[in-house]
Parts: sequence; structure tokens; C-alpha cells
Amino acid sequence: MQINVETKPVGSAAYDVRKKRLVETIDRLYLRDARAPLQKMISRIHPADMAAILDDLPPAHVVDVFHAIADTRMAADVFNQLPVDRRTQLLTESSIEKLAGVLEHLPPDDLADLIGDLPEDQREQLMALLGRDSKDEVESLLQYDPNSAGGIMTTDFFSLPHSLSVEEAIENIRSREDVEMVFYLYLTDEMGRLVGVVSLRQLLLTRAGTPLHKVMNRRVMKVTTDTDQTTVAMLVDKYRLLAIPVVDEDNVLVGMITVDDVIDVIEEETTRDMLKMAGTSESETLTHSALKIASIRLPWLLAAFIGGLAATAVIGRYEEILGQVLVLSAFLPVIMGMAGNVGVQSATVAVRGLATGAIDVKDTLPLVLKELRVGLALGGFYGVILGIYGFFVHDSLQLGQVVGLTILGNMTGAALLAVLLPMMFQRLKVDPAVATGPFVTTAIDILGVLNYFVIATWIYRL
Amino acid sequence: MQINVETKPVGSAAYDVRKKRLVETIDRLYLRDARAPLQKMISRIHPADMAAILDDLPPAHVVDVFHAIADTRMAADVFNQLPVDRRTQLLTESSIEKLAGVLEHLPPDDLADLIGDLPEDQREQLMALLGRDSKDEVESLLQYDPNSAGGIMTTDFFSLPHSLSVEEAIENIRSREDVEMVFYLYLTDEMGRLVGVVSLRQLLLTRAGTPLHKVMNRRVMKVTTDTDQTTVAMLVDKYRLLAIPVVDEDNVLVGMITVDDVIDVIEEETTRDMLKMAGTSESETLTHSALKIASIRLPWLLAAFIGGLAATAVIGRYEEILGQVLVLSAFLPVIMGMAGNVGVQSATVAVRGLATGAIDVKDTLPLVLKELRVGLALGGFYGVILGIYGFFVHDSLQLGQVVGLTILGNMTGAALLAVLLPMMFQRLKVDPAVATGPFVTTAIDILGVLNYFVIATWIYRL
Repeated sequence: MQINVETKPVGSAAYDVRKKRLVETIDRLYLRDARAPLQKMISRIHPADMAAILDDLPPAHVVDVFHAIADTRMAADVFNQLPVDRRTQLLTESSIEKLAGVLEHLPPDDLADLIGDLPEDQREQLMALLGRDSKDEVESLLQYDPNSAGGIMTTDFFSLPHSLSVEEAIENIRSREDVEMVFYLYLTDEMGRLVGVVSLRQLLLTRAGTPLHKVMNRRVMKVTTDTDQTTVAMLVDKYRLLAIPVVDEDNVLVGMITVDDVIDVIEEETTRDMLKMAGTSESETLTHSALKIASIRLPWLLAAFIGGLAATAVIGRYEEILGQVLVLSAFLPVIMGMAGNVGVQSATVAVRGLATGAIDVKDTLPLVLKELRVGLALGGFYGVILGIYGFFVHDSLQLGQVVGLTILGNMTGAALLAVLLPMMFQRLKVDPAVATGPFVTTAIDILGVLNYFVIATWIYRL
Repeated sequence: MQINVETKPVGSAAYDVRKKRLVETIDRLYLRDARAPLQKMISRIHPADMAAILDDLPPAHVVDVFHAIADTRMAADVFNQLPVDRRTQLLTESSIEKLAGVLEHLPPDDLADLIGDLPEDQREQLMALLGRDSKDEVESLLQYDPNSAGGIMTTDFFSLPHSLSVEEAIENIRSREDVEMVFYLYLTDEMGRLVGVVSLRQLLLTRAGTPLHKVMNRRVMKVTTDTDQTTVAMLVDKYRLLAIPVVDEDNVLVGMITVDDVIDVIEEETTRDMLKMAGTSESETLTHSALKIASIRLPWLLAAFIGGLAATAVIGRYEEILGQVLVLSAFLPVIMGMAGNVGVQSATVAVRGLATGAIDVKDTLPLVLKELRVGLALGGFYGVILGIYGFFVHDSLQLGQVVGLTILGNMTGAALLAVLLPMMFQRLKVDPAVATGPFVTTAIDILGVLNYFVIATWIYRL
């Protein structure tokens, strides 16, 4: 965390202009091989902006310009904020030796994540080049599940013995300039166990000489290393914390998770949910291989494929009526499409509501009843319109009745299924996002087609 | 923001048990009309937990238990964290007079949001009951667009003249216990213009007697009242800030946005995006009326409906071939379904990538080429399978060729369209989430059906 980084008020247009100019200047300096002015210029740019600038440079210049960052700490900050693509490029196109000096300055949690994602051989090479301390920290972090508190915490936190006095604490803060954000001071006993917390503000307001344990708050909100990252995010959000300490099973303080990491968790979980709902997974964003992406999407599509074949088989059984009333097949797209669309609407509302906590499993019945009414209203509306269309355009009362009734039934059923399935999944502790993709769509398709032909057989009395 | 609120380590199972017990105890005390023990018990519960408890009480008891919260500040905190449903219940079922005393303690930004959402008559009633200060603040906040920095900022921030010395600043902090989070101290000149910032940590580390303007950082990252809330969230996330100051057009400091508000913005924007992608809007989460929800979804479905009718018309034109090769209609669901599903996958990856910044408009060409290859791979795979299925099950080489080629073409086309449209919308500064819903689906449906019959006509040489 750092403060106060931009020179200009931030309006996105002005910002874009400024960035574009910086990109051009830096690229020009690079092409002229003006190393000293380039380094000087770069040193004055905020790491977050430098990352954005690198992303905008011609790809062939990125590695060299990156290594023109003179300060390895800044380089680490920049690296940490580069998009995945550019990071991969740097990892593959520059020598591991050259990078190791930079990567050592990454926060231990980020370094561990990076190393965890590397292929086996690069991982060992890089580990061998790290300093003893970094290596130990990374190794201890790598043992945690990446989606747990242990996997996202930083070990680079600040804690003090609770027996110190206020001035001693301040003296300590003075001497440790490099640690991440110290607005909460976690206090430990002689065994390293978390016993309390003091905010910087309290420290500032307490008279000198007071021992910390007299002013500390003993009711520390904390999580254990194996707490799920979603729970951590939920807690930090709910209690509006800036950071939360992480303890092991003996209550020994082992790490800290800051609110900026929580924002990343929230973004990551949402992306995961959305991709799952669409029937793919976040792994596809990590690769450029079309075949690999296809292989990630393939199994999800299989459910839809089998469902489609089942619908094909259903229609096959009704070939007789299709032969007599050819126009029935023309209405298949609109009938299937409308049910599918209302299903996606209902499912999205349910899945997102469950994810944000706006909806609770205990609300299942009222929710289902609500969706039933919504489905009936929409189905009624479009049923009447499609019925009239069928009647007038094809001059057949029977056709109008069939398509009108079908769309009423299918839209209502789709709305109902699309809210019921996620709620059911949530109750069974299965991720409801899974329910929404091919699963619901397929169920809606098959039932919808079946309903269509049952109604058609009935109305045409075949 | 507050710190350290829970007594127990937080594991979600243990937490649930504890909450359930609290809910039961509180409800029992309420039913026994034991007001004093009830108040005492409540006073020891964290507002966030109390909100969760109220949500779990029998609805008929909620209003009375809420008004049993003795401390109006705590009541305001609890109110602020209640789900929309319960807030609405409190607003309708308790007298505005009784509530006004509580609501006055809401942070001005939240109070303004609340009042902005009230129906006209309630709004005026409540405004009349507020104290002068609250009223002025709310009125000034209500003039900003709710999605701008002005709309989400709080006016309850802490700033000091830059001419003060460090001790004077500390003395000031001591005297103002109630202001929101002071880990950054914003410094202003005699005109109230923002000139610098000092962190609490710097204050702690600076020797007494130093004037603030000697230690302050002059490069303050700031936004103006009309900055879009998405830009604010992006900045706070990107630069890992804990808060960002808001200035007016004369650089006068008028408010502050904290990281917890930014988390809310991120959640809200994501919900909006997801619902937009599904063809509905977040307004539907604010109402319980099925008819109102249906009316929100209705227009979005219209695009799909018109598209469906267009597909119907396309099929109508090919009635002749359908009459001769009846089985063609049986394959409509699987052909449409597969293209639709791959389209949703590609579109979701594109829209989410644009929203998180993982994808940039300048990457359009490589992205489109990638999706083209993905579509070809998936279409090839399912094309071969469906072709074989058509050939063997229906004993027709022609049918196998038609369905195989169609699915190859349609899945490829769907993947392509689904990535092209969001990128195009983004470039035109239209929200790409809109592109993904009925728009893409409909385009894919119509083109897919058309392609199917063109290929069928060609292969069957009709």
C-alpha cells in the first residue's frame, strides 16, 4: 500500500492523454538507447502507471524497458501489477538470474503465488536463486491451499510483544520502514500467540509510558490459515476491516490479509462464478492455446450436446405430427429461445443473489413463488402475442393455440426451474453457479420441446 | 470502520452455531418482554452480527427488537447493514419519528442514498425531522449523480489546515473521536483547497514542532465529485489506497471515499453487469412485485422474441425442404443449443475480461483469431460426432454431412460473433455487457438457422 501517487487530478480522459504521451516518450528514449534519461524518467513514475505503460509498449520492447527500471523494489512493484501476459513474457524472455533479484522484493504471498504457478523446472531454478529468507517464507506459504487464508496471507506483517510500552512501539515502527501497512499493530505474548491489537490512532492518542497491553483491544477478529478465502473476504467486507490477522491452530500469529488482497479475492471469485455460469473455467484465461481452451469448454458443452440429442430424439418420436403440420418446426427457435432467455434471467438473479448474500436458502419458497408469478406474467404476455401471430400469419386457430400455450408453459417452467436448481444446489453445498450453465439450459430445452409436442398432439387431436 | 469485534475465532460452522443461539436467546427475551436483559444483551453484540440476527428473527418481531437497541448510534450501524427487505420493513412499519433519531447517525452518504430511494412523501417527512446539519449534508449530497464520486463520498471526513504543527494535529485527532477512519490526514489551505496528505504513520514518526506542510505529501491522488464511481473503484484498487479524497472544480476538499465503499461499488457494478448480460437489471432486486419484475425483463426479451420470429420466418421459407426431409427439424434444438452455448462462453470471457481490465480493446484482433480457432476446434469435434450420429442413427450420409457441417459453421460463427460484438461495443463506448444478452443470442439464432438450411439445400441439391 502506498499513498498519494498521482500528480494530476484523475479524470479518465486527461489520464489517458498523459499515459499515451509517457508511452511515446519512453519508447523514443528506448529506441535512441538513451539509458540514463530513460532510467531517470522511469524512476519518477508510479509503479502502477509504469505497469500500464509497459503493457502499451510494442511487445518487443517490453523486456528491455522493464530491465531499465533501476530500483529493484520498484521493478518488483511494477511486475506485480503487470497483466498475466506480460508477466509470462518477462518470465520466458529474460534470464531467471536477472529476474530473481527483482522477484525477491515481491511480497512473500505474491512471490509464492507466482512460484506456485511456474512449471517445475523454472520453479526450482528460481527457488535456488532466492535468498534464504525469501526461500523459507515461500516454502512455508506454498504448503497452504491457494484458496485459503494461508494461501493469500502475507508473512511480511508487523507485530510486537504486548509487554512493550507505547514509546517502545513507536520506536519499533520507526525502525521498520519496509513492512506492509501498519495501521493495526498486532500484539503477541512470549509464545507468539495473538493476544490483542492496537490501532495507530490509539497509539497516537495514548500517553507515553503506558504498556501496550493496557490499551490493546483483546477481542481480535481473526481467521485461521485454513479458513476459506471467500469467508475471509466476507468478514473483511462485513466488518469493514482494513486487515485481518491469520493464526495457526495454536493461535500463533503467522500472517495478515489486507483489504487490497480481499478486493482481489472478490474479483477472482466473481470471475470464477461468471465463467462457471457460462460453462467454462478461469483456467482458460491463463492460456493462449486455442486447443487447450477448447478442451476446457468441451466437457461443459457435452451436457448441452447430450441434452440437444435428447431433444432430437423427442422430436423424432413426433415425426408424424410434424409431417402433417410442417409449420410446427418453424416455431421451434422462438419457443426454445424465449424459455432459455427467461431461464438465464431467473438463474442469474438467483446465483448472484446467493453469492452476494442478498438471497438466503431459507427464502427458497417465496423466491420460487415470485419467479412463478414472473414466469406466468411473461409467458402470458408473449403467449398471447405469439398466439395471435400464429393465428393471423398462418391462418390457423389451432396453431395459435399450440404456440401460445406452449410459450406460456415453457417460460413459466423455465423461470421456475432456473430458480429452483441453484437453490437446491446451494442447499446441497454444490456451487450454484454450476447449476446455471448447461445443466439448466439443457433441462429447459428437453422439457420445452416435449411440452410443445404434447400440446400440439392434444390440440390437433392426433 | 472499526476493529476487533469478534470474541471467537471465526470458523463458519462455529459462527453459525453461535449466531443461532443468539437468535434464540434474543427472541426468548423479547417474547418474555424482558426489556432490560434484552437491551443489555444487544449492547454487547457487534452491529454487523446484530443485523444478521435481526434478519433471522421471525419477521413479526423484527421492528420491536430493532427498537430495543438502546444506543441510537449502534442502531444506525445495525440499520446500515440490514438487507434491503428488512430496511424497507423498518421504514414502513415503524413511525418515521422513532426512526429519525436513529437515521440521523447514519454516515451522511448512506443517509443520502436512503433518502434518495424513498418515495416522495416519506422523503419529505424524514427530511423535516432531521437536524439542521444532517439535513444540509444530505441536501448537498443528493444533488450528485448516485453513481459519481459525489454520490458515494462521505462528507464526514477529517481534514486540517496545513499550517498546523504535528502536536496540534494530534491534539485535533484526540478531540474528534467520532469521524470516520483517520489513517490519512488531508491537509487544506486557507481556502479549503486540498494541498497535501499525511498518514497517521508519518505523524507518529515526525518530531514534535514540525509543521505539517513540511512532512506532507503534495502529490495527492484525488478525484472530482463528477468522477464516475467505476473510475474511483479502479483507482483505489489499482493504487491500493485505503481512501481517496474528493474535490470540487476549485480543488476544494468536499469529501472522502473509503475502501469499504469501494468494495460495495465493485460488488454493485458486477451485479449490474451480470444482470445486464442476462437481459435484466438490478432494479428487479429492489422490488417484490412480480409484475414489476416482469415489466423490467419484458423489453430485454423482446429482442429475443423478434429474433425468434425472424428465425421462424427463415424456416418458413424452407418449408419445401423440411417437407421432404422431415428429420431436419429434429436437429434444430441441438444445432441452436450448441451455438448458443459456445456463444455464451466466448461472450462471458470477453465481457468479464473487459470489466476487470484483463482484456483491452487493442487486443481485438488476436482475441478474435483465438476465438476463431477455439470455435473451429469445438465445432470440428462436435461436428464429427453429430455427423456420425446423423449418419448412423438416421442411415443417411447426406444428413450426417448437413448436421456436421452446420454445427462446425455455427459454433465457429457463434464464438466469433460473441467476442466481436462486445469488443465493438466497448470501442463505441457502449456497455459491452448489453451486447451479450439477447443481442448476441438472437443474432446467433437467426444466422445459425439460415446457415442450416442453406447447407441442407446445397447437400440435398434441392
